[in-house]
Amino acid sequence: MILPYPIITAPTLFLDEKKALNNLKKMSEKAKKSHTRLVPHFKTHQSRHIGEWYKEYGVTEITVSSIYAAEYFLPQLWENIHIAFPFNPLEITKLNRLAAEQSISVQLVNAATAGLLADNLLQQVGYFIEIDAGYGRTGVEVSDFGTIEAILRTSLKTNKLKFRGFYIHAGHTYHSSPEEIQAIYHQTTSALTMLKDKYNSEFPDLVIRLGDTPSCSIQQDFAGIDEVGPGNFIFYDLTQAALGSCTKEDIAVALAAPIVDIKKHKNEILVHGGGVHLSKDVLILPNGQKSYGEVVFIHEDGWEILEEPAIVKSISQEHGVLQAPKAIIDRVHLGELIGILPVHSCMTADCMGGYMNLKGEKVDHFKGQNSFYRNL
Amino acid sequence: MILPYPIITAPTLFLDEKKALNNLKKMSEKAKKSHTRLVPHFKTHQSRHIGEWYKEYGVTEITVSSIYAAEYFLPQLWENIHIAFPFNPLEITKLNRLAAEQSISVQLVNAATAGLLADNLLQQVGYFIEIDAGYGRTGVEVSDFGTIEAILRTSLKTNKLKFRGFYIHAGHTYHSSPEEIQAIYHQTTSALTMLKDKYNSEFPDLVIRLGDTPSCSIQQDFAGIDEVGPGNFIFYDLTQAALGSCTKEDIAVALAAPIVDIKKHKNEILVHGGGVHLSKDVLILPNGQKSYGEVVFIHEDGWEILEEPAIVKSISQEHGVLQAPKAIIDRVHLGELIGILPVHSCMTADCMGGYMNLKGEKVDHFKGQNSFYRNL
Repeated sequence: MILPYPIITAPTLFLDEKKALNNLKKMSEKAKKSHTRLVPHFKTHQSRHIGEWYKEYGVTEITVSSIYAAEYFLPQLWENIHIAFPFNPLEITKLNRLAAEQSISVQLVNAATAGLLADNLLQQVGYFIEIDAGYGRTGVEVSDFGTIEAILRTSLKTNKLKFRGFYIHAGHTYHSSPEEIQAIYHQTTSALTMLKDKYNSEFPDLVIRLGDTPSCSIQQDFAGIDEVGPGNFIFYDLTQAALGSCTKEDIAVALAAPIVDIKKHKNEILVHGGGVHLSKDVLILPNGQKSYGEVVFIHEDGWEILEEPAIVKSISQEHGVLQAPKAIIDRVHLGELIGILPVHSCMTADCMGGYMNLKGEKVDHFKGQNSFYRNL
Repeated sequence: MILPYPIITAPTLFLDEKKALNNLKKMSEKAKKSHTRLVPHFKTHQSRHIGEWYKEYGVTEITVSSIYAAEYFLPQLWENIHIAFPFNPLEITKLNRLAAEQSISVQLVNAATAGLLADNLLQQVGYFIEIDAGYGRTGVEVSDFGTIEAILRTSLKTNKLKFRGFYIHAGHTYHSSPEEIQAIYHQTTSALTMLKDKYNSEFPDLVIRLGDTPSCSIQQDFAGIDEVGPGNFIFYDLTQAALGSCTKEDIAVALAAPIVDIKKHKNEILVHGGGVHLSKDVLILPNGQKSYGEVVFIHEDGWEILEEPAIVKSISQEHGVLQAPKAIIDRVHLGELIGILPVHSCMTADCMGGYMNLKGEKVDHFKGQNSFYRNL
């Protein structure tokens, strides 16, 4: 419980770069072994500094979830940036401007938007058709050939829209057991393979891509899938650990939160670290309890996962209440920093808008736009 | 469903200034009638522009929840800024620097932190003792006179710490019926009055303050309470409407979200508007359904609350899925903006980091540091 960086006085998101790099190495090697291309999603880290690492693993194309994030990564000169969100017709002008500088692909889920692009594009852009194979959030239902055909035919009216392939984000893996995740993976790959077989003769270059971290982590072999696009795996989090995608040791970010009160008789520690830092994402533990994070001890060279877990039992805007066994309560003091592994690292990173690595260096995040910790 | 501001192409937080000003007027008049001072909490709007309005209603002192927010409001020359969060010992240097320029009060919940301040303060600061009268989040338990005495005696060792009074945030009103809120209000005021009676002879200037919006909204008379410090009332939100603190018409902010897909056969609308915009705060409806927001139609002069409500039934990082009756589905089109009333306006404002008023002007928020919409 030594303060590693006396400069830190406020909630700060620590990044263990070694852990993140190891997560990247493992995912990259698994993809290579299957002859599957890794086109990672950058929605989790949203960082140029972290983005650079992927180049060393042969990554040349990336995925983001908004046109603003695509702009942020423009200076990194990627061969293509895919915006994996149903295209927003209001952003056509912005897309034309961006596509003049950068190879872009968009995502389509209906023919109306395909028509709008066909009529208004000034630059060539690629597109994926997003398929819903059971998640139910977004995408063309896998059996809805009417819509798939309508998108393809509408796009063929122009040479500005180039069909790239089919994309599935099987987000329902986030509510599943490892066995169910395997079953969803097989369902997803069957759907994609069926579509590839159906359209391959007309579009010989089409690829099939799937995107969720649980599938990509639990599945050991991506044979038959052209591209995988996971994002969360770079950091992982408690949700992924609970799903079996990773161990808690793999989690690469932890919020350092100042201890402001200790209630020994209630086994509670109060920290400055609430919903504006961690987000309000919650994990339901096997015993039915709600967890907003898990306590770790911060040391100079990283953090220590505790044998007997202590959790963030409640949070409000700025407050976090930790429920901790006596052994932990006895080790902590007012005015120290305590670490919290996040339930959902993408959201925590977005709330914080920046990181600090274990050398004490600042790491950028799109939301903080290099300003790092707007409030520090 | 006319687009009021063609410039808006991305999720944007609309602020209806008339509604907010009306909320402020009502709270201010109620406080004046009871001869109670309004010391509003600025954690909800976190805006200098909005902060200025309070001056016209006689407000001279304000409340914030972090030392960084106190710094943000420094240029507005308030007579005092109260930091309503248990003082974080790591911020002693920052506090000394801030208190050299601005009258500050802090919040204490244990004697150890009082001792640290007594030993290290270079400037005089005021302090409130935060009391826990049943909420269980933070504060000295109301019956714990040992801790109260220890804080008071420790502070008397220095002339730098000036006792201001007792503060209660009765956050458990957020899980209560209007009748229970009244009961909590009476319990809170009894606790504060008891403490005032006990310590008034020794500290004749001490005040008692309570802070939660549900109590301050539902209670019609603050007789006997010196100061009230609500924050959320300036905007209100769906949680407050469900509690009976306000009507949905009083809610002063709505997220404008671009429609990117419409699934008529499923009665669903997909928007760009997710957890990074609204936050993941959730409201459990009387029928047990989860709501992440309620749909409104945006017009040039504000928004229209729908007779038959439509809700945001699920959100992920960037996606919002609206479940809408046929009458609503038939009125919307791809590429339009639709409005969403937030479940928790403080968190939504913090996610967005800026507002746009109905004249199309940008309004600052601390988190966006005047830059307004970092991604626009």
